[in-house]
Amino acid sequence: MPEFLKLTSPSQALQIFLSHLKNRVNAETLPTLEALGRVTVSPIFSPIPLPSFPRSTVDGYAVRAEDTFGSSESLPGYLRVKGEILMGAIPGFDLVRGEAALIHTGGMLPDSSDAVVMLENTQRIGTDNVEILRAVSAGENVLKVGEDVEQGQEVIAAGVRLRPAEIGGLAALGILNVEVARKPSVGILSSGDEILPPDAELKPGHVRDINSYTLSALVEQVGGIPRRYGIFPDRFEILQTVSANALEECDLVVITAGSSASARDLTARVITGLGEPGVLVHGVNIKPGKPTILAVCKDKAVIGLPGNPVSALVIAGFYVVPVVELLLGLSSAPIRPMVRAKLNTNISSQAGREDWVPTRMDLTPEGYRAEPIFSKSNLIFSLVRANGMIRVPSEVTGLSAGELVEVYLFT
Amino acid sequence: MPEFLKLTSPSQALQIFLSHLKNRVNAETLPTLEALGRVTVSPIFSPIPLPSFPRSTVDGYAVRAEDTFGSSESLPGYLRVKGEILMGAIPGFDLVRGEAALIHTGGMLPDSSDAVVMLENTQRIGTDNVEILRAVSAGENVLKVGEDVEQGQEVIAAGVRLRPAEIGGLAALGILNVEVARKPSVGILSSGDEILPPDAELKPGHVRDINSYTLSALVEQVGGIPRRYGIFPDRFEILQTVSANALEECDLVVITAGSSASARDLTARVITGLGEPGVLVHGVNIKPGKPTILAVCKDKAVIGLPGNPVSALVIAGFYVVPVVELLLGLSSAPIRPMVRAKLNTNISSQAGREDWVPTRMDLTPEGYRAEPIFSKSNLIFSLVRANGMIRVPSEVTGLSAGELVEVYLFT
Repeated sequence: MPEFLKLTSPSQALQIFLSHLKNRVNAETLPTLEALGRVTVSPIFSPIPLPSFPRSTVDGYAVRAEDTFGSSESLPGYLRVKGEILMGAIPGFDLVRGEAALIHTGGMLPDSSDAVVMLENTQRIGTDNVEILRAVSAGENVLKVGEDVEQGQEVIAAGVRLRPAEIGGLAALGILNVEVARKPSVGILSSGDEILPPDAELKPGHVRDINSYTLSALVEQVGGIPRRYGIFPDRFEILQTVSANALEECDLVVITAGSSASARDLTARVITGLGEPGVLVHGVNIKPGKPTILAVCKDKAVIGLPGNPVSALVIAGFYVVPVVELLLGLSSAPIRPMVRAKLNTNISSQAGREDWVPTRMDLTPEGYRAEPIFSKSNLIFSLVRANGMIRVPSEVTGLSAGELVEVYLFT
Repeated sequence: MPEFLKLTSPSQALQIFLSHLKNRVNAETLPTLEALGRVTVSPIFSPIPLPSFPRSTVDGYAVRAEDTFGSSESLPGYLRVKGEILMGAIPGFDLVRGEAALIHTGGMLPDSSDAVVMLENTQRIGTDNVEILRAVSAGENVLKVGEDVEQGQEVIAAGVRLRPAEIGGLAALGILNVEVARKPSVGILSSGDEILPPDAELKPGHVRDINSYTLSALVEQVGGIPRRYGIFPDRFEILQTVSANALEECDLVVITAGSSASARDLTARVITGLGEPGVLVHGVNIKPGKPTILAVCKDKAVIGLPGNPVSALVIAGFYVVPVVELLLGLSSAPIRPMVRAKLNTNISSQAGREDWVPTRMDLTPEGYRAEPIFSKSNLIFSLVRANGMIRVPSEVTGLSAGELVEVYLFT
């Protein structure tokens, strides 16, 4: 098959592809509370020190550390209790020699006190005095101003996806708005004379479109905006016009071909016509997904996916997702989580080709059990059963039942 | 400390807690294309068989298998080419003895043909004839009607969170609407005399509210609707009134206490007053998060979280998330992904207590390296740096530098 004369390895293909793309992030400003899952475009610096006042880290008595020197259970020190520091209040007094003040976790230390004795190391004597059963050194049980975060310190880097922790951190700093990457738009086209939309009545010889919907959902999941252009017949002029239009309007274009070889050839010709440098990779040494096309046209990524719905979704995870992440300005590749599981059957594979096998993992008392899902037709419902993917590296000819394998989570 | 006389193990606490809760899912119907991430409430059955017509899995020639018997490279069979079956078309003819038809992957087989010879095993002779270089058996390279999914077959179970694969699968079946669990509402209250909202000017002795925002984001992430009731002073009557109101209006109530011991006691008293059976667990043998309160009042979960923002967010992952998942009717606990990483420093821990240590994982040429983040104050920014959590089981006193540890992803 001439179209696959030169097959590129999956990781090499990604490298070639990304090296031709520029990281062009567009920014927008959002209220912090609506920015969950969005990606920062510039570093965020703290406008204040945290803590912004000296705080006790325990319940106890604020003291001048030197007043407690030598205090012990056998020889307690005695301090006069000047008062109680209420939560959320300024002490309203400072401590002079021989004085202590009742303080709660998070409370503000009075001026001239520099340590806190934990409650369990004290014994209150009436209303006015307290026994100190353990000496403290200066700074003990106290957070100094700026000890956690200094004023002006970078607290969140650029290119970070905001999680609950970051949202809370920004709230702590009073940062109410945040500049994030605009969601990249991804144009999605399906081609194939046999493809019908999901709401059409099914006619013999036809199948309903799957790829537009799996890909839309994937794009949404990873933080892009899917734009479905629809279903088009396998005709060069129509596909060329629509995809040129999509390239104009979107940040990334994905075309899924019909399932026949001629439909795949057509996609390659259409993409070639979209602009320079054009097709960079045609054919990846991977199963499923060999007919994948990776191209850059007019500085934008164009991806030709196999028409088979399983191949399309799996390959989109390898090549569409990283481009969306690049367009979001994500500073580092997200960690791909894996689960160690015991393979329950043999997987055979062709040496020299990387295979990805949809897999069902179930938790058993002995740990996770992995059951590869083999499907003659690669129907989408084989992926519905899968919650993982097993990678069979190109240098082996298979994996054996009973082996502990690393299963990538499939979500 | 009397409040922690009886500490429960983290997993035992969850078990006690969940055993008192009923799975009460409310349903709503959504367009399939808007249902990504939602959870099915009932099984979904296929209204049609898939494929719905006999399909070729290859490019080649549709034949009657018996006509190819004995054909080989050395002794090819000869068949008359009756025509080409176009994609998306009904063949319009059937095959009689000695006939074949050009067919493409996904094409519909003509009546009375039962197999497809792959293109590479044929040799076209002029326009009318084809040499068959390899015999095929009945059913070879053909998907029979219903081979993937039979009409009436369950394709998606109840309690499944819809991913891109499911959305595509539903599109394939022409299922345009889907019944999913209504998002549970989670009432969130912050208490503490020292707490200010994020938009307030910071006064000495005060800190801005973090927990309302981390918890809202977490609830949103897992598929619930957060309802923030605001920040309240540490006063029994006010907290009691507001939390009773929240319990009335929401499916689950979360209260974060101030950081002092007295504020925590107050939360326990408030929850006790909300209804039977009341507090089930007070104090969990875990760090961070010892003062956790798990309660069920009037058939709804009420959770008292520590005021410390790190403890609150970590513990919410253990106890708030499972309740939201229960209220969504999720059929199985999601897989908690882990990454194996090399610990770069010792972690010490108290035997008999389960510790969870926020950890930074970085990818090195030797694999992931895990750097525990130790923070005196448990400030939220220690979690901002973390992308994982290391569990130190209660039966050990620590983990050693250089050990390969399993790090749970923290997202």
